[in-house]
Amino acid sequence: MASGTLLYAQSGGVTAVINATASAVIQSARARKVKVLAARNGILGALREELIDTSKESISAIRALAHTPGGAFGSCRVKLKSLEDDRAKYERLLDVLRAHDVRWFLYNGGNDSADTALKVSRLAREFDYPLTCVGVPKTVDNDLAVTDCCPGFGSAAKYTAVSVREAALDVAAMADTSTKVFVYEAMGRHAGWLAAAAGLAGNGPDEAPHLILFPERPYDEADFFAKVKATVERVGYCVVVASEGIQTADGRFVADAGGGKDSFGHTQLGGVASHLAGRVKDALGYKVHWALPDYLQRSARHVASKMDLQQAIAVGNAAVDYALAGMNAVMPVIVRTSEEPYRWTIEPAPLTKIANREKKMPAGFLRRDGYGITQRARLYLEPLIRGEAPPPYGRDGLPAYVSLKNVAVKSRLAPWAG
Amino acid sequence: MASGTLLYAQSGGVTAVINATASAVIQSARARKVKVLAARNGILGALREELIDTSKESISAIRALAHTPGGAFGSCRVKLKSLEDDRAKYERLLDVLRAHDVRWFLYNGGNDSADTALKVSRLAREFDYPLTCVGVPKTVDNDLAVTDCCPGFGSAAKYTAVSVREAALDVAAMADTSTKVFVYEAMGRHAGWLAAAAGLAGNGPDEAPHLILFPERPYDEADFFAKVKATVERVGYCVVVASEGIQTADGRFVADAGGGKDSFGHTQLGGVASHLAGRVKDALGYKVHWALPDYLQRSARHVASKMDLQQAIAVGNAAVDYALAGMNAVMPVIVRTSEEPYRWTIEPAPLTKIANREKKMPAGFLRRDGYGITQRARLYLEPLIRGEAPPPYGRDGLPAYVSLKNVAVKSRLAPWAG
Repeated sequence: MASGTLLYAQSGGVTAVINATASAVIQSARARKVKVLAARNGILGALREELIDTSKESISAIRALAHTPGGAFGSCRVKLKSLEDDRAKYERLLDVLRAHDVRWFLYNGGNDSADTALKVSRLAREFDYPLTCVGVPKTVDNDLAVTDCCPGFGSAAKYTAVSVREAALDVAAMADTSTKVFVYEAMGRHAGWLAAAAGLAGNGPDEAPHLILFPERPYDEADFFAKVKATVERVGYCVVVASEGIQTADGRFVADAGGGKDSFGHTQLGGVASHLAGRVKDALGYKVHWALPDYLQRSARHVASKMDLQQAIAVGNAAVDYALAGMNAVMPVIVRTSEEPYRWTIEPAPLTKIANREKKMPAGFLRRDGYGITQRARLYLEPLIRGEAPPPYGRDGLPAYVSLKNVAVKSRLAPWAG
Repeated sequence: MASGTLLYAQSGGVTAVINATASAVIQSARARKVKVLAARNGILGALREELIDTSKESISAIRALAHTPGGAFGSCRVKLKSLEDDRAKYERLLDVLRAHDVRWFLYNGGNDSADTALKVSRLAREFDYPLTCVGVPKTVDNDLAVTDCCPGFGSAAKYTAVSVREAALDVAAMADTSTKVFVYEAMGRHAGWLAAAAGLAGNGPDEAPHLILFPERPYDEADFFAKVKATVERVGYCVVVASEGIQTADGRFVADAGGGKDSFGHTQLGGVASHLAGRVKDALGYKVHWALPDYLQRSARHVASKMDLQQAIAVGNAAVDYALAGMNAVMPVIVRTSEEPYRWTIEPAPLTKIANREKKMPAGFLRRDGYGITQRARLYLEPLIRGEAPPPYGRDGLPAYVSLKNVAVKSRLAPWAG
């Protein structure tokens, strides 16, 4: 066994395929005889010295991770501040890494995580501690810089396009006497990537989704109502996909408007779809249904994209390669080498170019009227949802997802006071 | 070709597999050289004389129907009144049937549709018109009398159990620093069949879903809060599945409480999950997420139950057999002939025993504390979600669902004035 330990941790919102990355990391490291610890609940586990010994898991369990959604070791929503403001935390982190002879730190997350990995690597250099930090990309939001796309996005995109196509068939059948407008709410607070993916469900103005609302375009209610009405009159029904993050021209989130009180005066955790549904019903009198898939869209491993799965595995393998090669402060990113046919490869990119940045959707992806996607967007999105990779199912009709043993490593330091 | 025409129509909420029944009906009738017309938008198409000539569809299109969700000919939410109150409509219906030499009428729906089919058959007898009426079961609500289960339910049940299992893995990973309570809203206004199916996602008190709220049990907020709090403290998070139809002890729908106004004073089309999420956040302070899959749960053909699909096909085939054998005013129902191993067969049941009745969930299916399902319920539910029957996917990563040509038959009567 090589000297030193590899520490892997998951950060931020989990996805249908982040565990596939974890599976690849562990298998790849095992093949090189490198010991892998996983931090429980992301960076918090590293701070608290709550570390999991992955060598206690069978190879079949590690393989099954590749078809199990969620985050097998736990994730966290914690953003460390700057090196100066949170110096004690960064130093504690380094203490834990040192105590467990961690020589390679792989942080699997979004742009915040890339930032954390970058700072840990700087501190290690400052203290002359030999540590290689590698960021590993994941996010259903598809908003990481440099990489062409983000592992996790393709599967959520496929879920979105499939669900909208299916629900649209339902609405079409019912529209004559019942529901005429259906609103589907997609994740995406700052960028409409998932809403855009819904556009793959249909083609041409009469196929659902008929209207997509993007956070990139100001929401104009009167114009939206007119479009809904025209669609219902022309097609018989109207399927709307709305990003949770749409805003009015004065910069207010439409979703916040839904965060009112119910008739008992209690907090109503509404969303964009609920708000739009109520408004359309009030203004146009149509029967409206709406759906809010929430976590379902990012955990739906049963309808994962095979392309996304392959990329999630590829970044995991590459991250181990880079780490063991001593390539510090980099992230394996996906590079699109050919558009038609779609081809991609993995390359290292410096974390400095990724940390804290956010990739917006190109303006050329939105139709001029702002309610749909362009051919350019289709060309980008379609390969990402290509192929199926269903999990194995048990005789009970349910996907056979694995639960790891998650055996804790014995602590070597005093408990963290943070 | 046999003399006379078979008319098939779809009614009420559509399902992931009602088109599989249609496909079986058409293929079965074609094999017997019987011409099949389909009414556009259910009984309305029959009243309006909007009939579709299914012989214009290719055999490959009819086969593809078996993996296409929604209602291929359109459905409707129309309940005819009693024979006395709506006599003109029933007579118009008979006129249309007569004009197109319809000798067999197959109505694919729930208990209202069974009632309509029954009344049409009575009227035909009264007018001495030779017509055989057969009801064909479908409903995700699983509330039809006599039949052991309803085609459409198994697939919606599988969607529910799979989705809850997946979302629960997501919540488990995030709970330490983020969402601690997740609420999933299941269809079921009067009976909690789909909420019960969510119970298949886990086993034992620590596995999700931790709490299921059924319309069969009065909703007691204080007790529910205590249970949520205890679960979060014991497990770290709590996954709740709520039937849309839950009521307080005084008989008020909890969902109505959500139908309030947002901060702009506009109608807020809330639901149970939204209401519960707001209340739990207010009362317990936990971060809460919630999902409302709405039509997604009944159109998710991509995760259909193979057992459900087989039963949807079997009732279609049997309906044609019964019709051509002149068995009037019956419905093919599913009979469970063995519990372990699960075995079933199709038998005819008189519509009189099905029309307008509603099957409730047996009391023995609910756990004594009211928040979960019993072993007895598991034994009933589990076979219904067994097996996978994914649709074919295109190279674009989307299910290859079929759109029929739906060629209209020329009218032979004056337009309907109704």
